Amino acid sequence: MKAAQYLGDSKFGVVPSTHIPPKAGEVSLDVGYVGICGTDMHIYHGAMDHRVCPPNVIGHEMSGTVREVGSGVTGYCVGDKVVVRPLDYCGDCPACNAGHSHICHNLNFMGIDTAGALQSSWTVKARTLHKLPDNIDLRTGAIIEPLSVACHDVTRAGVKAGEDVVILGGGPIGQLIAQVAKAKGANVLISEINETRLKFSDENGIETINPAQDDIVATVMERTNGKGADVVFEVAGVLPAVKAMTDIAAVRGRICIVAIHSKPAEIDLFKFFWRELEMVGARVYEAADYDEAIELVASGKLNVEPFFTGEFTLDQVGDAFHALDTNPTGMKYIINCGGQV
Amino acid sequence: MKAAQYLGDSKFGVVPSTHIPPKAGEVSLDVGYVGICGTDMHIYHGAMDHRVCPPNVIGHEMSGTVREVGSGVTGYCVGDKVVVRPLDYCGDCPACNAGHSHICHNLNFMGIDTAGALQSSWTVKARTLHKLPDNIDLRTGAIIEPLSVACHDVTRAGVKAGEDVVILGGGPIGQLIAQVAKAKGANVLISEINETRLKFSDENGIETINPAQDDIVATVMERTNGKGADVVFEVAGVLPAVKAMTDIAAVRGRICIVAIHSKPAEIDLFKFFWRELEMVGARVYEAADYDEAIELVASGKLNVEPFFTGEFTLDQVGDAFHALDTNPTGMKYIINCGGQV
Repeated sequence: MKAAQYLGDSKFGVVPSTHIPPKAGEVSLDVGYVGICGTDMHIYHGAMDHRVCPPNVIGHEMSGTVREVGSGVTGYCVGDKVVVRPLDYCGDCPACNAGHSHICHNLNFMGIDTAGALQSSWTVKARTLHKLPDNIDLRTGAIIEPLSVACHDVTRAGVKAGEDVVILGGGPIGQLIAQVAKAKGANVLISEINETRLKFSDENGIETINPAQDDIVATVMERTNGKGADVVFEVAGVLPAVKAMTDIAAVRGRICIVAIHSKPAEIDLFKFFWRELEMVGARVYEAADYDEAIELVASGKLNVEPFFTGEFTLDQVGDAFHALDTNPTGMKYIINCGGQV
Repeated sequence: MKAAQYLGDSKFGVVPSTHIPPKAGEVSLDVGYVGICGTDMHIYHGAMDHRVCPPNVIGHEMSGTVREVGSGVTGYCVGDKVVVRPLDYCGDCPACNAGHSHICHNLNFMGIDTAGALQSSWTVKARTLHKLPDNIDLRTGAIIEPLSVACHDVTRAGVKAGEDVVILGGGPIGQLIAQVAKAKGANVLISEINETRLKFSDENGIETINPAQDDIVATVMERTNGKGADVVFEVAGVLPAVKAMTDIAAVRGRICIVAIHSKPAEIDLFKFFWRELEMVGARVYEAADYDEAIELVASGKLNVEPFFTGEFTLDQVGDAFHALDTNPTGMKYIINCGGQV
């Protein structure tokens, strides 16, 4: 058994590990696959050492099989295929009390604030699990976490069939949002300047605009007969997107802030007043988002296969992070942790 | 019969006027009272000459009695007490088609874009009217328009009983929002730096904080046991309020932008993400807001009497504007146009 420890300074070490028997309410998992996400890359670049406290095991986009079930756990059997919703909440803060435990004031994000999934065996609270149906294999299961992010974003924005949706930023989350919104029957346009990502959109049935070449306001207004976008997702995290999001939104249009903006950004509040715009922040996911993501994949409504860019073994974890770091237009790199054998 | 014309450059002229007989679908009114609002003061200061095109009759916070009913108009009789919802929409733009005619792309705001109520007789489309019940007199009726603004704001923010509401800015609209939110059962706090307005709040049962003296974030967090405000109204239109609005909002807190911000303002988008905040713009009102405002006053749930600061005649219109201009902490100055006789 092995664990990949993040050592700080873009370095990993693979060390022997031991199985931690589950306590009451817990389950131990043989980890199948772990995906690498943008937050993992921030950790890799040293930006989150204050939370991760290296050396530590990271990784939170995972799939696995149940190895051992702790006392008091019902609904899970040894061998069940599962994914973990890696949010450990306190249950007693104002957010939890209001039913928003996914953004608990004292949230412990598993794989960031505590040990994560990049190891052969991971022991977690049973309440974090969602079962995978027979027709989703563990490799595919590794995308349920980022797909749940997209489901949460689309739900927060209240996307409905027939609505005009513009997604500013065509990275992995932007592309997944596009697929989820399209599955809901929306008319989707991705705005992106990178040719590789534009090509990915085209190949997966999503219309595109390159705002470095074409006027995004004129394009959106023309597509919508002067109405504007019913929903705008700001996934780019750059100031031109923050400017565009209010310029292209329809009267009563909804803007969903998905990107993490580390600095305050200038926003056209006059347009919020004039057009009665709405803006919502979206962070992580809730249980229902995991259920929706699993259903979208299991039902075949959404094909996630094109999102898999590369696969590495647990021993190659450093190579996997380096590969994504040097190929920022890649979509999803996953690490085979061996638990599916 | 008289009309008060805004001449430009903070000047008015009172000129003889004639009654305009109502066409089909129209009603002519004997104007009772007209209130002066912040937008009228912008006009007075010359900031909106491009829309008003002086000389022109302004005024849109009004009450009156039906003088003559045009053909095809049902539901109104000569002598009925009414107020005008001064929004004339096109009925055929994307906003109107989506049911948001109050913010029609081609909205004609009566009293700004076309002739207003500061005259003895005003002829308007019957569809702009709301009837006043017997127990609301015309003087009180003059406050229905700004109270409808407050009702719209409170509805847009979705204020519910028991919620913690903070209003940034204690001018007339902020104070009316406070009264409407309180009538809905919310716990209301007004943040205001002006002593006269703080005193007005105190006298009318609204708790206050002066953010120039006390830390607003600490105060709100203490009042709410660390939760923060469920709803924040930004009515001040100043940058410290824009900063405070995200600092004091609870997880999933709603921020309602009421103030008109002529310039883009820096907003903490990280907090939108982290706490899943929501922000909605609110502009003017819909028919249901007028109905609610009339009901709040008619039922006695809300006492608007303290809002009346001063009264002038139509001949004194220049004095009325000068009075408000030199007493910016005044609440509501109204002009008696004689139509109630």
